[in-house]
Amino acid sequence: MDLSKEIASKGRLVDDFMLELLKICTSDELYEILVHQVASGGKRVRPALAILSCEAVGGNSELAIPAAAGVELIHNYTLIFDDIIDRSELRRSLPTVRAKYGDVMAVLAGMHYREAVFEAAIRSPKSRKIEKIFSVALKRIIEGERLDVLFEQAGRESEYIKKMRRTSISEKDYLEMVEAKTAVLFEASCKAGGIVGNGPRTQVDALSKFGRNCGMAFQIKDDILDIVGDSGDFGKEVGKDIKEHKLGNLALLRALAEVSDNDREKLTAILKSPFIRDSDVKKTIKTILLKDAIECAYKKSRSFIATAKSNLDRIPPSKAKHTLVCIADFIIERKF
Amino acid sequence: MDLSKEIASKGRLVDDFMLELLKICTSDELYEILVHQVASGGKRVRPALAILSCEAVGGNSELAIPAAAGVELIHNYTLIFDDIIDRSELRRSLPTVRAKYGDVMAVLAGMHYREAVFEAAIRSPKSRKIEKIFSVALKRIIEGERLDVLFEQAGRESEYIKKMRRTSISEKDYLEMVEAKTAVLFEASCKAGGIVGNGPRTQVDALSKFGRNCGMAFQIKDDILDIVGDSGDFGKEVGKDIKEHKLGNLALLRALAEVSDNDREKLTAILKSPFIRDSDVKKTIKTILLKDAIECAYKKSRSFIATAKSNLDRIPPSKAKHTLVCIADFIIERKF
Repeated sequence: MDLSKEIASKGRLVDDFMLELLKICTSDELYEILVHQVASGGKRVRPALAILSCEAVGGNSELAIPAAAGVELIHNYTLIFDDIIDRSELRRSLPTVRAKYGDVMAVLAGMHYREAVFEAAIRSPKSRKIEKIFSVALKRIIEGERLDVLFEQAGRESEYIKKMRRTSISEKDYLEMVEAKTAVLFEASCKAGGIVGNGPRTQVDALSKFGRNCGMAFQIKDDILDIVGDSGDFGKEVGKDIKEHKLGNLALLRALAEVSDNDREKLTAILKSPFIRDSDVKKTIKTILLKDAIECAYKKSRSFIATAKSNLDRIPPSKAKHTLVCIADFIIERKF
Repeated sequence: MDLSKEIASKGRLVDDFMLELLKICTSDELYEILVHQVASGGKRVRPALAILSCEAVGGNSELAIPAAAGVELIHNYTLIFDDIIDRSELRRSLPTVRAKYGDVMAVLAGMHYREAVFEAAIRSPKSRKIEKIFSVALKRIIEGERLDVLFEQAGRESEYIKKMRRTSISEKDYLEMVEAKTAVLFEASCKAGGIVGNGPRTQVDALSKFGRNCGMAFQIKDDILDIVGDSGDFGKEVGKDIKEHKLGNLALLRALAEVSDNDREKLTAILKSPFIRDSDVKKTIKTILLKDAIECAYKKSRSFIATAKSNLDRIPPSKAKHTLVCIADFIIERKF
């Protein structure tokens, strides 16, 4: 089985449905913009997790389609605003919504996405529960994004951000940020799937924890790919975190803890400089690679995956459970 | 009775509740930003309409508090993004969220507001109906804002907007834009109030139409105030629409229809110029005032108010109904 194809095929089950939901009460002109975001692809890991979690508790996959579409719409909703916030030009090797249509249209498209999330939720079994899961997740993601921005060391003109910026970040701070920014939506995907599949409480809890731990590992792997990835595979610019002055990258944080005082000062100076040149990005990556920061980050990521898998002990054996385990492994192994 | 005090006192019933809803699942740091938007005031017309509509169909005002808080949160949600889109510095004579905290924090605060709207809706009687009213209204508002931006004649760098810009706008186009941008939320406020008050269908429909027509009149009055208002009363910069190259202002549209070809060319050239000087704004206002464009706009606004009031014929007499009539008149008479 080619797992990324398996994930994509589960994910595709929601593609048409997402478009249907986005189309409700939309002008043709706005719809064109809305489509650009979901049509630009994505791994569809979150909807796959929702559908598989539903199946893993014995539910029919059909039950999970609205919730699965909902989590993918949430993901895309936050990506549109993320790209606005980070002024990103490329995502999945294509122009971002803001790059193609401008920031104003991206804001409006983003706002419409939130309404499509609502349309997804009300079409789901146990819709009120699903809505609450979605809304709480969104609030946590907003908080995660807020912290991620405050963990940047330069690059923002806002006096408020300059004042509130966190210049020293512990691993605990980092993990809190990542939990909110990324893990919460993985958790919500699995939880929603378990709930619409009518799973017993213990199984839904187990799936939620599986999802959260997968999400932690996923973000750490993203951090690693940001440093050592191949931009062709990754679909994002390598070194983007560094270029964006982000201290919220585990490989970078580990490297900073390990390097000599002299190198630490140099790296910090680069992150704090108002404009980071490509040569500085390369220099930073080189310094990170000289230390075993990448291996440390992998270790942390693997330990989250191990915890994730151990949570599945409470789920009875099934093809869906097996695929969930494979997804957990894929999160570490993926090159994109 | 001082009506604006009466409106404010109805509105105040929702203030604490809005803060409570905004506080759910928020960090203290983000909450400070969220509070700035609602604490900066506002007339609270929309929640007053919701509460009075509930009372007008015989419902207890308590029933309408969540829906009333919801419509005011929607209003503030859209204002936060509006100010980002228009790069506004001042609202209600105070710095906008984006001016005080920067665009990034404003985006995140805006996104959180949408979740507070959800929290309001689920606390309302007939919550699912209320949620749908809110979501449909939001999608229409997004569309209205989109049109408003496309009705601008310059001032945006986006190639997409430059390509899609509407250079010729009929009164029908204008009215469609205003209906979506403003009237829809007035309609939703009254409709939600009627529904939570358990009003019969005919009364809810009558209140909805009352609200929509009041909303149309409200926006036209806003357009008028933008040209002839006193910035001290109005809380916004006078001539802001002109400065923002907006053709979507009824007084301006009427003036353009009336002036000589020569003056029309001059006005159009001003609106299309990349940067509009204060002297150009003054010149434009002067040209508008020379014609009876303001009186024409007043006439249109008054006719919407007359229609609004006629819709109340189907509502039995009550103190609440009387206050609704007074609000309709206030919409025309207000100086802010």
